[in-house]
Amino acid sequence: MQPLKPAGVGLRTRLFQIIFESSTPLGKGFDIALALLILLSVTVVLLDSVETYHQRYGDYFYYAEWVVTALFTLEIGLRIYCLEKPIQYLKSFYGVIDVLAVLPTWLALVLPGAQTLVVIRLLRTLRLFRVLEMMSLVGQGKLLVDAMKRSRGQIMLFLFSVMMLVTIFSSIIYLIEPAEAGFTSIPKAIYWGIVTLTTVGYGDITPVTPLGQFISIMIMLTGYSIIALPVGVFSAEVIQTLRNERYSDEACPGCGKHQHERDARYCKFCGTWLNEETTNPPEEKPAS
Amino acid sequence: MQPLKPAGVGLRTRLFQIIFESSTPLGKGFDIALALLILLSVTVVLLDSVETYHQRYGDYFYYAEWVVTALFTLEIGLRIYCLEKPIQYLKSFYGVIDVLAVLPTWLALVLPGAQTLVVIRLLRTLRLFRVLEMMSLVGQGKLLVDAMKRSRGQIMLFLFSVMMLVTIFSSIIYLIEPAEAGFTSIPKAIYWGIVTLTTVGYGDITPVTPLGQFISIMIMLTGYSIIALPVGVFSAEVIQTLRNERYSDEACPGCGKHQHERDARYCKFCGTWLNEETTNPPEEKPAS
Amino acid sequence: MQPLKPAGVGLRTRLFQIIFESSTPLGKGFDIALALLILLSVTVVLLDSVETYHQRYGDYFYYAEWVVTALFTLEIGLRIYCLEKPIQYLKSFYGVIDVLAVLPTWLALVLPGAQTLVVIRLLRTLRLFRVLEMMSLVGQGKLLVDAMKRSRGQIMLFLFSVMMLVTIFSSIIYLIEPAEAGFTSIPKAIYWGIVTLTTVGYGDITPVTPLGQFISIMIMLTGYSIIALPVGVFSAEVIQTLRNERYSDEACPGCGKHQHERDARYCKFCGTWLNEETTNPPEEKPAS
Amino acid sequence: MQPLKPAGVGLRTRLFQIIFESSTPLGKGFDIALALLILLSVTVVLLDSVETYHQRYGDYFYYAEWVVTALFTLEIGLRIYCLEKPIQYLKSFYGVIDVLAVLPTWLALVLPGAQTLVVIRLLRTLRLFRVLEMMSLVGQGKLLVDAMKRSRGQIMLFLFSVMMLVTIFSSIIYLIEPAEAGFTSIPKAIYWGIVTLTTVGYGDITPVTPLGQFISIMIMLTGYSIIALPVGVFSAEVIQTLRNERYSDEACPGCGKHQHERDARYCKFCGTWLNEETTNPPEEKPAS
Repeated sequence: MQPLKPAGVGLRTRLFQIIFESSTPLGKGFDIALALLILLSVTVVLLDSVETYHQRYGDYFYYAEWVVTALFTLEIGLRIYCLEKPIQYLKSFYGVIDVLAVLPTWLALVLPGAQTLVVIRLLRTLRLFRVLEMMSLVGQGKLLVDAMKRSRGQIMLFLFSVMMLVTIFSSIIYLIEPAEAGFTSIPKAIYWGIVTLTTVGYGDITPVTPLGQFISIMIMLTGYSIIALPVGVFSAEVIQTLRNERYSDEACPGCGKHQHERDARYCKFCGTWLNEETTNPPEEKPAS
Repeated sequence: MQPLKPAGVGLRTRLFQIIFESSTPLGKGFDIALALLILLSVTVVLLDSVETYHQRYGDYFYYAEWVVTALFTLEIGLRIYCLEKPIQYLKSFYGVIDVLAVLPTWLALVLPGAQTLVVIRLLRTLRLFRVLEMMSLVGQGKLLVDAMKRSRGQIMLFLFSVMMLVTIFSSIIYLIEPAEAGFTSIPKAIYWGIVTLTTVGYGDITPVTPLGQFISIMIMLTGYSIIALPVGVFSAEVIQTLRNERYSDEACPGCGKHQHERDARYCKFCGTWLNEETTNPPEEKPAS
Repeated sequence: MQPLKPAGVGLRTRLFQIIFESSTPLGKGFDIALALLILLSVTVVLLDSVETYHQRYGDYFYYAEWVVTALFTLEIGLRIYCLEKPIQYLKSFYGVIDVLAVLPTWLALVLPGAQTLVVIRLLRTLRLFRVLEMMSLVGQGKLLVDAMKRSRGQIMLFLFSVMMLVTIFSSIIYLIEPAEAGFTSIPKAIYWGIVTLTTVGYGDITPVTPLGQFISIMIMLTGYSIIALPVGVFSAEVIQTLRNERYSDEACPGCGKHQHERDARYCKFCGTWLNEETTNPPEEKPAS
Repeated sequence: MQPLKPAGVGLRTRLFQIIFESSTPLGKGFDIALALLILLSVTVVLLDSVETYHQRYGDYFYYAEWVVTALFTLEIGLRIYCLEKPIQYLKSFYGVIDVLAVLPTWLALVLPGAQTLVVIRLLRTLRLFRVLEMMSLVGQGKLLVDAMKRSRGQIMLFLFSVMMLVTIFSSIIYLIEPAEAGFTSIPKAIYWGIVTLTTVGYGDITPVTPLGQFISIMIMLTGYSIIALPVGVFSAEVIQTLRNERYSDEACPGCGKHQHERDARYCKFCGTWLNEETTNPPEEKPAS
C-alpha cells in the first residue's frame, strides 16, 4: 500500500490524522473505537448465524447490522473526503475490504439474496492488526514474516512434494480399497490422503483391507516424520534472522560495504580498520 | 507472591520453618506428606466421579473427603497462626487455592448443591510443584519459562492470525456446506475449523461437498505447515537462552573480543587474564 | 541418471536441445508444454475416476486419454530418435516412468483390464519437477535434501524404535481390549497403535476399557513428545548445513583463525588478505 | 549391563566369541541368523493372532512356535554354558527377555492358559538392535540418546505440567458436558483431554455444548502451540551436542583441564599455550 496523503489543510488534515494515523490521542481513540465496532459487527454476524439466536434476537441483529453498516459507510465517506487521491485508497487492499464489508447490506435492498454475503464482513477483522500494531505486537511479528519470506521457496517445494506423494499413494489406495469404505474416486482418495498425512484423521473414510491399512501406516509415518522438514528449515531461518541482528549496520569507512559482524575490527572486504574513533597504527595490526 | 514472614519466635517460627520452608528434614517431610495428601484427595475426587465406584464405595469416599477437608482446614489454620501477616497469605495465589479447596465441602453443609464444586480441589495439584522444586526439576524449567516469556509476543500474534484465518475459512465453509453435515452456524464452523487446523480431527463434523473438502485440504495443509512458526521461534529462543547462559557479556581487556564462556579465566584468543579485579601485567595489554 | 548425449548433428541435435535441455526458448517451451500436457492427463485420470463425471463425460475422457497417449508415445519416439544411446534413457528412472505412463492404454487394446492401470500415469507428475527446476525452486530444495541425507540414519533408527515401541504397546492392548472394540488381531492393534502414536486418530478403533484407555494415553503422550526427536535432529542438520554454506573452510594465513564468511576478503580478526594466490606482504604475516 | 566374560578357553571361548561378539564372521553370522529367527517368531505370533490365519494355518504356527522355542532354549543353554558367571547374564536386561520369550510355551505344557502370554516374545525384537549396531546405525543414535538424557528433566516437567493442565480443563468439561456426550466420569474426561491436547482426536467422545466446544478449542490451541516446548528444548540440545563435537578432547598441558574449543590457542583456565608442538614465545602472545 502506497502512503496515502491528506487532501489539504485544516479540517481534512485533522481528519486524516485521526483516521489514518495513530500518533495523536484522537487517532488512537479512533482506531480503538473502530476495532470495537468491527468486533461488534463480527459478533452480530456470528450470533445471527446460530438458528436459535436468529429466531429470538433476529430483529435486534437486523438493526445492529444497519447501524454498523451506516457507521462503516460514514467511515468510508470520511476516508474519501479527507484524502488527496481517494481512488488510491479505494484500490488499496484495505479499501477493497472496507467497501466489500458494507456492500452486501446495501445490495440486499435491491437483491434480497445478497444478505447472505454479509459474512464477507468478517474480512474486516484484518483491520484489527492496526490495534495490534499499536500494542507493538506486530513489530515482533516482523521476525516471523522475515523468516517466512526466506523459507517460502523451501516450504512451497515441500508442499508440492507432499501433494505428489499423496496423489501417488492415494491412487494406490483407490485401487486397493473397496468403494464402500469411502474411496469412491481418486479425488476423494486424495482428500483422505491429506487428512491422513497431516495427521488430522477425521475418520470419515478409513481403510478396511489389511493392505490398505498397511499403506495408510506408510502415509501416517511419512506425515509424522516429514513435518520435521518445514519445522527444521523454518527454525534455521529464524535463528539466522536473529543472528543477523548480530551484524552491525555501520558501513566500512574504507570501501563503504555493509554486513560486518559486530565483533569485527577490520573490514572483511578491504581490510580497513572499522572503529573510526581510535587511530589505527599498523604495528597494532597483528595484535587482535 | 511476596515473601511471607513468621509471626514471632518459638513455636510459631518453628511451625513456619516446617510449613513454608523445606530446608529442614521436618519441612521436607511436611511437603511430602502434603503432596501425598493432595494426591489422595485428587484420587478420591477422580474415583468418586466414576458411577460404579460411587455406588460401591460412595460412603468411604464421603468419609475420606471429610478427613481430607479437616486436614486441609487444619493446615490453613496453622499457616494463618504462624504468619505475621496472614491476610497476605490468604490473598496470595496459593492461599486462594487452599481456601477454595476446602470451601465446597463446608458449604455443602448449608447448600446441598455445593458438593459438586469439590472438583475445584483439583487445583491444589498445583501445590505439587513444591515437591518438584525439591527434586530440582523446576530449576530446569526456568529455561522453558524464560524462552516462553521471550517468545510470548510472537506466539500470541501467531494465535491471533490463526484465529482470523480460521474465522475467514470457516465462514466460507459455512456458506458452502449443507447444515446436515454439521455446519449449522458460523461458531460451529469455527469449532470445526480449529479441530481441523490443529490437526485434532475429531470427525464429528466433516465436509461432504467436493468444494468443502477442497477448502478443508487448504486448512489442513495450512495447519500442518504453520506449526513450524511457533516451533521455529521457540527453538531459536531456547538456543539463544542456552547460549546467553554459557557466554559472559564481558569483553577481554586484552583484545576486546567477546564470546568468552563464563568459566573461562583467560581469553581464548590472546591469553589475557579475564578478571580485571586481579592485577594483570600492563605490558601484555595491547591497546584495542 | 547419467548424462544423455545427442545421437549426431543437425536435426537430432536440435531435437535433443529442445527435449532434454531448457537453455533455449524452444527447450523451455517444450518443458512447459509437456508440464501442461501432464497436468491435463492427470486431471483426466482424476475426473474419470469420479462416477458421475465418468457417466456424463466418459467418452470425452476416453478420447482425451488416447490423444494424451499418442502425444506421450510420440514424445518417447522423439527422445529415442535423438539420443545416441536410447537404451540408457529407457533404463533411466524417468525413461521407465515415461513408458509405464503409456503402456496401460496400449495394453488395454489386447487386455481389457489393463485400463485400470492408467492410474500409473500419475507417476509422470514427477516430470513436473523439471518446471520447478526452471523456476529455480529445486535449487532451494538442495538444502532440504542435504540435511535429509545427513539425518537419514537417525530418522531410520527413530522409525525403527517407534515401530518396536508400537508393536510392544499394541500387543498389550490386544491382550487387554475385547475383540468387539476392534482389536481383533495384533496386526490390527499395531495399525491402531500407529494411528494413535502419529496422532492421526481416525477413531475407527478406540479403546473401551479403562486400562486400555490408560495405555492409549501413554502411547499418545509418547507420540506427542517424541516427534521432538526427528524435528530436533533435522533442525540441527539444516542449521549446520546453512552454516557450512556461509563459512569458508580456509584458515586465515595471518592469524590462523577459521570461521571466515565465504565472501570475506580480509580476515575479520587481524586484517590479513585471505586469498593466498595474490601477493600478500610477508611482513604482515606473524608466525602462527 | 556389565561386560560378560567367557568361562574358559577352547570351545567355550570360541562359542563366547560367536554368540556374544560380532567381530568374527561367524559371530556376525550368528547375530544375523538370530535376527532372522526373531523376525520369524514375531511373524508367527502376529499372523497367529489373525483369526482366519489361525483357523487355516494354526497347526503350522504351532509347530513353528515349538521349533522357535526349542532353538531359543538351545541358545540360552549355549549362552549359560560358555559364560564364566551365567547368573550375571540371567539377571541382565537381555537375559530376562530371553527367558521370558521361551517361558510361556514351556509353561503351556502344565498351564494351558499360559499360551496367551507368547506375545511376550515380541520383546525379543529388542535383540534386533544388535544387528542395527553392526550396521553402525546405533552409533548415530548416540546423538539422540545424549540429547534425550540432557533434556529429560525438562521433558518430564513439561509432561507433568501438561497432565495438570489436562486434569483441570477436563474437570471443567466434566461439569459442563452432559454424560450422554461420553463425559461420564473425570478419568474419562481426562482421557478425552489427552486425546484432544495431543491432537490425536479419535472422536469417540466429543463436546456437544457450545461452552464445552469453546473449552475444547482452548485445549486444542494449547496442545497445538505447546508442542513447541519439547521440540524447542530438544532441538537446542541436539545443536548443543553437535557443537560439543567442536570441543577438543585434548587436556591443557598447563592445568590439565578439558573442554577447550577446537580453535582455542590458549587455555581458558590458566592461559597456557595449547599447541605443544610449537614453542610458545611470549612475544607471540598478542599475535593471534
